[in-house]
Amino acid sequence: MSVPVTARPPLRVAVLGCGVVGTEVVRLLTTQADDLAARVGARLELVGIAVRDTATARDAVVDVALLTTDAEKLVEQADVVVELMGGIEPARSLLLRAIAGGASVVTANKALLAQDGPTLYAAADEAGVDLYFEAAVAGAIPIVRPVRESLAGDTVERVLGIVNGTTNYVLDKMASEGLDLDQAVKEAQALGYAEADPTADVEGFDAAAKAAILASLAFHTRVSLDDVDRQGITGISADDVLWASRTGYVIKLLAIAERGVGGVQVRVHPALVPEAHPLAGVRGAYNAVFVEAEAAGQLMFYGRGAGGQPTASAVLGDVVSVARHRVLGGRGPVESRYAELPVLPADQARTRYQIRLDVVDRPGVLAQVAAVLAGHDVSIETVRQSPLGDSAVSAHLVITTHAAPDHAQRATIEAIERLDVVERVVSVLRVEGS
Amino acid sequence: MSVPVTARPPLRVAVLGCGVVGTEVVRLLTTQADDLAARVGARLELVGIAVRDTATARDAVVDVALLTTDAEKLVEQADVVVELMGGIEPARSLLLRAIAGGASVVTANKALLAQDGPTLYAAADEAGVDLYFEAAVAGAIPIVRPVRESLAGDTVERVLGIVNGTTNYVLDKMASEGLDLDQAVKEAQALGYAEADPTADVEGFDAAAKAAILASLAFHTRVSLDDVDRQGITGISADDVLWASRTGYVIKLLAIAERGVGGVQVRVHPALVPEAHPLAGVRGAYNAVFVEAEAAGQLMFYGRGAGGQPTASAVLGDVVSVARHRVLGGRGPVESRYAELPVLPADQARTRYQIRLDVVDRPGVLAQVAAVLAGHDVSIETVRQSPLGDSAVSAHLVITTHAAPDHAQRATIEAIERLDVVERVVSVLRVEGS
Repeated sequence: MSVPVTARPPLRVAVLGCGVVGTEVVRLLTTQADDLAARVGARLELVGIAVRDTATARDAVVDVALLTTDAEKLVEQADVVVELMGGIEPARSLLLRAIAGGASVVTANKALLAQDGPTLYAAADEAGVDLYFEAAVAGAIPIVRPVRESLAGDTVERVLGIVNGTTNYVLDKMASEGLDLDQAVKEAQALGYAEADPTADVEGFDAAAKAAILASLAFHTRVSLDDVDRQGITGISADDVLWASRTGYVIKLLAIAERGVGGVQVRVHPALVPEAHPLAGVRGAYNAVFVEAEAAGQLMFYGRGAGGQPTASAVLGDVVSVARHRVLGGRGPVESRYAELPVLPADQARTRYQIRLDVVDRPGVLAQVAAVLAGHDVSIETVRQSPLGDSAVSAHLVITTHAAPDHAQRATIEAIERLDVVERVVSVLRVEGS
Repeated sequence: MSVPVTARPPLRVAVLGCGVVGTEVVRLLTTQADDLAARVGARLELVGIAVRDTATARDAVVDVALLTTDAEKLVEQADVVVELMGGIEPARSLLLRAIAGGASVVTANKALLAQDGPTLYAAADEAGVDLYFEAAVAGAIPIVRPVRESLAGDTVERVLGIVNGTTNYVLDKMASEGLDLDQAVKEAQALGYAEADPTADVEGFDAAAKAAILASLAFHTRVSLDDVDRQGITGISADDVLWASRTGYVIKLLAIAERGVGGVQVRVHPALVPEAHPLAGVRGAYNAVFVEAEAAGQLMFYGRGAGGQPTASAVLGDVVSVARHRVLGGRGPVESRYAELPVLPADQARTRYQIRLDVVDRPGVLAQVAAVLAGHDVSIETVRQSPLGDSAVSAHLVITTHAAPDHAQRATIEAIERLDVVERVVSVLRVEGS
C-alpha cells in the first residue's frame, strides 16, 4: 500500500566539510544508497560537498564534481544539511541559513552546541525543522537519542561519561604500561588518537562541551560550556595511577552531570573509579556513558567515541531520522528546558576524595590529621599508612573520605597542608561511581 | 511561542494489566504527571486500568475507581493503549482493537511480537498509528530505539545479547560460588529472579523471543520465533563452568543474530565468552546487548533487563514518544522488512567450539583425535591435556577449534565419539565473541 521509493522525489543532501568524518559520510551515502532509500522512503541525493579548497586531494569515493567552496549557496539548495566543519564560524551561520531556508540539519559540532545550542534550537523551532546531533557526544554511541527519547518518561539522577577517547587511551596506557603522561600522549599522537596540539583533549575542553550537552538533555535545563567546572588530566602522574591501582581504583577523566539538592552540577575532572564499576573496564580509546535514572536504574552505553566511520554511522542515523520526517511528516524532539533547574557551582557538589600525603613518621601523626578532617565534618572511610621508600623518617598516608561538600573537602586539605607533621600533600583526587 | 500545555486537551491513556510493571507504570503516570505533560506538550490522563479482578488488593498508587474488567470498552476510549498483560490472547485482540480504533499502542509483550509482530505492524500501518515496544527486549535498556533509529544509516553485522536476567544470574552464581544449576535456580527463585516454573527462562524461550525481535530490527527482515534455533542452560554443569574459567572463558546464555553468506542466522544457546569481552563482565541479573555494525564498530548497551521499575521506565519513554506524535504530528518507525534476507538454519552458522573429552591416557591419542578434526576440515586452536583426577589410565582433553561450519563441527564430534580411545565426550560448547 505504500508508494514505491522511486515514485517520490529524492531528498537533496548537502555535506559541509570533507575531512575524515565527511568522507565517510559521503561513502555511506554513496555505497548504501539503496538501503538508505528503503529505510527513508525516498532516495537521498548528495547535491554538494562544501570544502575550503576544491583542489585538495580526496578519497576516490568523493565525486570532485560535487565539491564547492560556496557553502552558502549549497545550503540553500538542500533539504537536509549535514554540518561536519567543526568550530563556531562559519558553521553557525551556515546552519542558521540552512534552517531559515527550511532545511533539516544534522551536526556533529559539540563546541557549537555547547556554546550556542539555544540559538540553533530556537531557529529550528521557528522554522519547524529538525536539529539532530547524535554524533556530537560519544561518536558512534547512541546516547543523545536514548537520553532525549528512551528516558523521557524517567528522571535522570546522574550521568558519568568517559566521553573523550584520547584521554582514556592515555590514562589506560599509563595504567597498563606504567608510562608517564608525556610518554602516553606521544604514543597517542603517534597512533592518531591525539592531535599535534592535544590541549582540547588533555585539558578537558572537549569533554566539557559534551558534559554541557548531556546535562542539558538529561535535566531539561539549559547548561552551557561556561557552567561546566573543568579540570584536565595534566596533573596526573604515573605515581597517581599506581596508587589508584594499589587502592582498588582506576583513574578516568569523567564528564559528570548530577541532580542534587537545589539544582544540577556539571563538571569534568579526573576521578578514581572503583575497579568493579562498569566504567573501570572501558579500555583504550573507547567511550562509555553511565546513566542512573530513578526508575531505569543503572544503564551504560559503550562504543567508539571518535573516528571517521563510527562518527559517520551516528550522522547517517540522524540523516535517516530527519529525512523520514520530511517524507512522512512529523518532527523529532525539540529543546526541552522546561525544568530550568539552577546550575550550581562545583563547590556545591558532594564528593568523596582520596588524599595522599607525605608525613613525618612518628606516633600521633595520623591522630592529628584525622582531627583536622573531623573538625571539618569530613568523615574518613579508609586510611593506609606505609613507610616512604628508603626514608626512615617519612611515611606515606592515603586517606579516602566519605562524601562531603566540596568546599569542606577543600578547606580540609588546606588545613592539612598547614600541619607541621605534613611534609607534602602529594595528590588530591575525587572518587566517583561508588 | 508554543501553546501552553494546559491549553491542549489531555491525551487519554489506558493501561491493560496491573501486575508489577503495570503498577509502576501507573505510579510514574501519576507521580511524574507534570514532567510528562511538559515533555509531551499535553497532559496524560489515565482513563482506566484493565484487570481480571477489580477486588484484588493493589498498591495504594492505583486508584481503584480506574479499575475495570471491561478491557474492550476501555481501549475504545483511549488515545494511547499500554499493554502489559503478556501472553498471546487477549493481548493480541485488544491491541488490534485499539489500533483499529485509532489509538497508538505501547507493549512490552515479547512473546506476542515474536509470534505475530507482522500482524500488529500491518494493522498499525493501516491505521497510521504508532506501535512501540522498547520494554519487550532487555527491559530498561534502550536497544529497540537505537537499533531501529540510531543505526538506521549503518549495516548491522551481528548482535550478541544477554537478554535473560534469570539465566545470567544463575550462571553468574554457578561461576562465583561453585553452585550447581539446581542450587543456583533455587536461589534465583528465592530472590524473585526466577519463576516457580523456570522453564521459559532456563530453556531459552524468553531469550528466543527477544532474539527474533532484535534480528528483525537489525536485519530489516521478518524473523519469527520459529526461525530461532534454541538451546537452554539445563545441560550446563558446575564442571563446565569451572573448565570455562580454567580456559579463560565465562559461560553466558546468548541471543545471537548474525548476517552471513546467504542470509541471517538467529540462535539462542549457552556459549563460552572470553573473559576480556565486554559481555563477560555482565554480572547478576543484568542484561547487555553487544552490537557489531559495519561503520559504528562495536557497541554495547547495558542495564536492568527486568523488574517493575526498569521496565516501566522503558514503557513510559515509549508513551512519551507516541503521545508527542499525537500532539505534534508524525509517526515513529514502521516495520522495516525490505531486505527480506533468507533466515538460515543453525547448521549454516560458522562457529568455534570447545570440546571436552575423557580419553585413554596413552601416547598417540591426541594424534588420533586431531586426525578426525583435520579430516572434517576443522582446525584446532588450542589443546589442553591433563590427567583425570586419581585415574592413572584416563586423561582429560580440552580442544578449542577455529571457526568452521556448524554441520562440520557436529560431524566431527560424532566421529570423535566413535573413537575407541575416547571414553566420553564430556561437553560441547560454542565459543562466541572472539
